[in-house]
Amino acid sequence: MPDLHPAATVGDLSEDVILARILERLGPADVAVGPGDDAAVLDLADARAVVTTDTLVHGPDFRLAWSNGRDLGAKSAAVNLADIAAMGARPVALFVALAMPPSTTLAFVEDLATGLREACDELAPGCRVAGGDLTISETLTIAVTAIGELTPGGRPVLRSGARVGDVVAIAGDVGVAAAGLDILFERFRDAAGEPVAVDASVLTDAERAAVAGQLRPRPPIAAGTRAAAAGATAMMDVSDGLVRDARRLARASGVTLDLERASLEPDSERALRGGEDHALLATFPAQTPLPRPFRIIGVVRDAGEATVTVDGVPADGPGGWDPYRDWDGAAG
Amino acid sequence: MPDLHPAATVGDLSEDVILARILERLGPADVAVGPGDDAAVLDLADARAVVTTDTLVHGPDFRLAWSNGRDLGAKSAAVNLADIAAMGARPVALFVALAMPPSTTLAFVEDLATGLREACDELAPGCRVAGGDLTISETLTIAVTAIGELTPGGRPVLRSGARVGDVVAIAGDVGVAAAGLDILFERFRDAAGEPVAVDASVLTDAERAAVAGQLRPRPPIAAGTRAAAAGATAMMDVSDGLVRDARRLARASGVTLDLERASLEPDSERALRGGEDHALLATFPAQTPLPRPFRIIGVVRDAGEATVTVDGVPADGPGGWDPYRDWDGAAG
Repeated sequence: MPDLHPAATVGDLSEDVILARILERLGPADVAVGPGDDAAVLDLADARAVVTTDTLVHGPDFRLAWSNGRDLGAKSAAVNLADIAAMGARPVALFVALAMPPSTTLAFVEDLATGLREACDELAPGCRVAGGDLTISETLTIAVTAIGELTPGGRPVLRSGARVGDVVAIAGDVGVAAAGLDILFERFRDAAGEPVAVDASVLTDAERAAVAGQLRPRPPIAAGTRAAAAGATAMMDVSDGLVRDARRLARASGVTLDLERASLEPDSERALRGGEDHALLATFPAQTPLPRPFRIIGVVRDAGEATVTVDGVPADGPGGWDPYRDWDGAAG
Repeated sequence: MPDLHPAATVGDLSEDVILARILERLGPADVAVGPGDDAAVLDLADARAVVTTDTLVHGPDFRLAWSNGRDLGAKSAAVNLADIAAMGARPVALFVALAMPPSTTLAFVEDLATGLREACDELAPGCRVAGGDLTISETLTIAVTAIGELTPGGRPVLRSGARVGDVVAIAGDVGVAAAGLDILFERFRDAAGEPVAVDASVLTDAERAAVAGQLRPRPPIAAGTRAAAAGATAMMDVSDGLVRDARRLARASGVTLDLERASLEPDSERALRGGEDHALLATFPAQTPLPRPFRIIGVVRDAGEATVTVDGVPADGPGGWDPYRDWDGAAG
């Protein structure tokens, strides 16, 4: 490997050189055919492939002033791993389409690869990046596709299976990432509203944890297959806000979800609107021993006028984030 | 469905509305679980999933002055279908991560969806878009991941299996897309070098076909599984240039590929450097009856100093396209 300066940019280097640096950091993928051919070949547990794709775009989804390469790589993995987990499946491999400005440094790309690998090792051991694509773009864009496998004989857990009388449960944080985003917006922008680097020394421990939750969420991926094995009737990952996503699950199942505010304290308002923690929201038959770390936050009722209620009161407002309506092109 | 003006932009609309319009045009996907849950579930022919991802970015990969939404949708499908075919596999489903400026019109997005579906119907019947992701970005970016299946009991065709004495064969056009790009660059740019709309009325039939080959390639996807069944020893899709990609196959197999110039006329120079047609380059044991539309363009020889020769003479020069080194940020 040539000894390249980490400040070298992708515009100075050939694709082969950049790719070699990335592959070095990703480590070998335990797959039938890995990177280097036209496509990868994965050996799954059975003939069902679970597939999802989610993209992080500079501007609406992250700001380089706030996110470093490692956090960004880890987050782009985590958000996709959570979608696989939410089907009750085990993540097998990630495919990463990376579009980068020519001015992107090699060091940043290397950190991104390291973050992708760290998230896999930490959240979904056995899952690795098994392929991808490098292109030049004016906008840094990380499009990840995750492939998962179901337990042979097991069924995917859909959004549509919640039944009246089930308990509503959640695994992972809700509202922490939203609190972190509020801190970033309120305290780490300049007079013109542009993001500036985070100075962690001015934050309390709780604030630091919230910022970390926003920049590098750690959803409980392994809880997905545990929920399926325990008999979860419906499941989804909370990416756009708890109320907003609960509405989707309720609508798909033809029920109403009644959430209990006390279970979402100390900051129930943020918990109800926050989503980017990628917690797993699931329903289980009453009396099911819940797999860790699920905790009960409500019950499933007959479909009413409101698809989501909080302590019996209809949950109002948009309750989440719509990247098309809410993004203002600058502050996002 | 609300009656929206096709000039409405994605910045004006909610994700749900845009998604509904896209799904309408994609038609139902014949999969176990389709769009609308956290992930899709695909039933494959066996427990092996063939996976590839390839991205088209506005600027380096296409220009909206030259490409319309339908052609762009079709091309973004075709380039990924070709990678699946090059493994000897059958494409099962596409996943599309679409990042769009807020000013993108709904009509354009609808056309893109139509193009994706048309390419699947035409090139890989049975394959459909089964999931995706919509985000806002300053740069129009279409990241597609394709999933394919192998014939049960069949082996993927890798780049590394070419043996001395095999014939080298190709299925599909080579050099046509490159000729089309030259026409676009030479004849459809303004004084400042910026792309302007193509006026097909000033082109000959051959020129029109070349431009169509660049803007909407039609690689022979079904030839991939036919090649595998016929015993192809190695295969890849020609995306970066025939000489450049042949070098990769030769290196992976530890051989030299000797191409015959006469088989690449009438424009052998463009055929040798052109790649974006996504033809399938394969090697077969001598005397193998070649599946259509493969034709012989050379032979596999013992590894020599040059990994690719043309009529025995080493092929010089870069012989292709490296998006990192060659892209100038404006004219590409």
